[in-house]
Amino acid sequence: MHAIVMSMGNELTSGQTVDTNSAWLSRQLAALGISVRRHITVADELDVIRAALDAAARDADVVLTTGGIGPTEDDLTRHALAAAMGVGLEFHAPSLEHIREFFARRSRDMPEANRIQAMFPAGSTPIENICGTAPGIQAKLHQADVFVMPGVPREMRVMFERSVAPLLAGRGAGVILMRTVHTFGAGESDVGTTIRDLMRRGRNPTVGTTAQQTIIGVRIQAAGRDFAEARRLLDADTAELRRRLGDLVFGEDDETLADAVGAQLLRTGQTVATAESCTGGLIAKSLTDVSGSSAYFLSGLVTYSNEAKVRLLAVPEALILEHGAVSAPVAEAMAVGGRRLFGADCALSTTGIAGPTGGTATKPVGLVFFGLAHAGGCEVHERRFGSELTRKEIRDRARKFALNLLRLRLLHASSA
Amino acid sequence: MHAIVMSMGNELTSGQTVDTNSAWLSRQLAALGISVRRHITVADELDVIRAALDAAARDADVVLTTGGIGPTEDDLTRHALAAAMGVGLEFHAPSLEHIREFFARRSRDMPEANRIQAMFPAGSTPIENICGTAPGIQAKLHQADVFVMPGVPREMRVMFERSVAPLLAGRGAGVILMRTVHTFGAGESDVGTTIRDLMRRGRNPTVGTTAQQTIIGVRIQAAGRDFAEARRLLDADTAELRRRLGDLVFGEDDETLADAVGAQLLRTGQTVATAESCTGGLIAKSLTDVSGSSAYFLSGLVTYSNEAKVRLLAVPEALILEHGAVSAPVAEAMAVGGRRLFGADCALSTTGIAGPTGGTATKPVGLVFFGLAHAGGCEVHERRFGSELTRKEIRDRARKFALNLLRLRLLHASSA
Repeated sequence: MHAIVMSMGNELTSGQTVDTNSAWLSRQLAALGISVRRHITVADELDVIRAALDAAARDADVVLTTGGIGPTEDDLTRHALAAAMGVGLEFHAPSLEHIREFFARRSRDMPEANRIQAMFPAGSTPIENICGTAPGIQAKLHQADVFVMPGVPREMRVMFERSVAPLLAGRGAGVILMRTVHTFGAGESDVGTTIRDLMRRGRNPTVGTTAQQTIIGVRIQAAGRDFAEARRLLDADTAELRRRLGDLVFGEDDETLADAVGAQLLRTGQTVATAESCTGGLIAKSLTDVSGSSAYFLSGLVTYSNEAKVRLLAVPEALILEHGAVSAPVAEAMAVGGRRLFGADCALSTTGIAGPTGGTATKPVGLVFFGLAHAGGCEVHERRFGSELTRKEIRDRARKFALNLLRLRLLHASSA
Repeated sequence: MHAIVMSMGNELTSGQTVDTNSAWLSRQLAALGISVRRHITVADELDVIRAALDAAARDADVVLTTGGIGPTEDDLTRHALAAAMGVGLEFHAPSLEHIREFFARRSRDMPEANRIQAMFPAGSTPIENICGTAPGIQAKLHQADVFVMPGVPREMRVMFERSVAPLLAGRGAGVILMRTVHTFGAGESDVGTTIRDLMRRGRNPTVGTTAQQTIIGVRIQAAGRDFAEARRLLDADTAELRRRLGDLVFGEDDETLADAVGAQLLRTGQTVATAESCTGGLIAKSLTDVSGSSAYFLSGLVTYSNEAKVRLLAVPEALILEHGAVSAPVAEAMAVGGRRLFGADCALSTTGIAGPTGGTATKPVGLVFFGLAHAGGCEVHERRFGSELTRKEIRDRARKFALNLLRLRLLHASSA
């Protein structure tokens, strides 16, 4: 059972938009045990789309397409599919009614242009679109089942989950489940060495590492005859990975470092505050990305100026004069001062040089000091993120390092 | 002059990684006047890659590929290219030397596995990789020029700009230049109506709108016989768009709202501070994303708790009791208090319900109040972002709305 995923549009072939639909669909197909052999992206040209559909349908059991079914002149997928099938377009009254209602609910008349969206290749079946005007199309081309879906990601996803996935379920070779276990604090090669035997080719589940901006993920892909078997294999590898990687593991799949920190704060009943310089609010933003964070995040202060560090955080002016604002003593004083100012159980601070300007020989771009104040005192850390990194990368790495400091402290505090 | 862009890798066909290389390369090719007919992504299977290379080289003048030239067993692009060319692999001593040096500079021995990266299809030419171990490959297949590049985006981009683009320059049909003019404050249909005549099909430049999370972009693509002509057309349309869209326009291409605000602050010599509740540091983070922002960004405070609003920002407790923390009077008091606390020329505040929980019938999820305090007083705004939006979307829209308030104020202040 092989699939080919196609996407249509000049905005894709010209590079103005990055196609995320094909990756999303491939993950859904994998979960159904259907492997994807190719992605194809084609420009809005009738002959090019027709030829690509024809070739794909000769080479795969299932062809999924996104894009090119809107109401404008450059939306050609329905015409190309009809041409590949050697049929004409036929009018489908219920679809037109659905489109009219879509506009009526928005108190608008249906533009004449949208009428084309109620036309379908003869012999094909419309697929309802509950999020937009464009119905999808289900058709048979050669031996392949072709599913034509909208290009708008949200409409496409709802349509796939609601109408296409149920038709494909059970047709794949068993079930493939995927999970990514996220780690922070070790490099990719160190993580890889720890789990090398699990990564050997030909093993099921397949296990591989992936590095994304200093977060090392371990991807597990388990194939089973049914859901239960795939799930059992996936869970067993997850448990083994967690056992070997220990505290490096902070979450799975969509879980972020901020989620992990939030969970630890909730579990231990502690509160947190921030006092940021070089990260400029990024740590506070990250902590409050999490829904329900008001239960543990009290307040945050961004002090770019020395004056604010002294006046609000009670950093001794002499400390700044002696060591400079970017220094371990100032990071410590900021964290302690922030903890006191906000009455939090713990407080994170950062002071550093995010660049691209402001670096010196002794304090280069990328140098960041961190403070973590808590009931038992204050820990201070120094990191030198490479000066070849961008401002955005340096700030992002500092954010992750700070969140991870707090995560590890909360983990250890609770096990003490 | 047509090109096909290919990418290789199971991580792409399985959907675990989204291919951004093909879009990037397509934009570079467009700038060289070379149009891209298709993108193809194939799994790590020798025969599949070979067949795809063969088909692409029969159908295009230029084939660019990314991925599959690493040192591991699943890196098969060089083997597939050799098979498609009907030749064997030959050893290239300078490439091996380059790879050895790459590891030596990092004080490591070259793993034996990397030796394969010094093997090239007979008759092909290595392309130097100054950022990594994998050299690229330039080869002729049928009538097409094939360029094989690494999958790591940074390595690929440097290699393309340094070694591939110079070979393609002058081969395209003239020059195509692109620019996107960004607007904030009007919907896509309103922007579209204002510039409808510029958007008609067949016109050069082509003009189209694109909506991305409430920022409406207007894309201009100008084709010319040479750079000067394309540039003249592009600039003329840009000027016309700016004339018609006025204050809605905040920047072009990579410019963000925070960049635009920063430029206005620098120009007017003013400073800014923030006092955020529901945006949780996002506005401060956004302002300080900009390099050099320390010249105008003084400080920011994130006050999630009422206690901190009262104590630090001097919001009268009675105001919170009477109107609630999410209210226009509290937004105003926060902005005024933040401006005073930090001694800034202007201060932005937010208080609202980012959700997904915490909404009520009268104060639903998505309701946000904004304050902008300045020397002349304080303006207060209320927005209801749809409750169907995610927490992330609501916070992001609130951020943009706040930054735009400040941008417009600074624009008008300076023209007064």
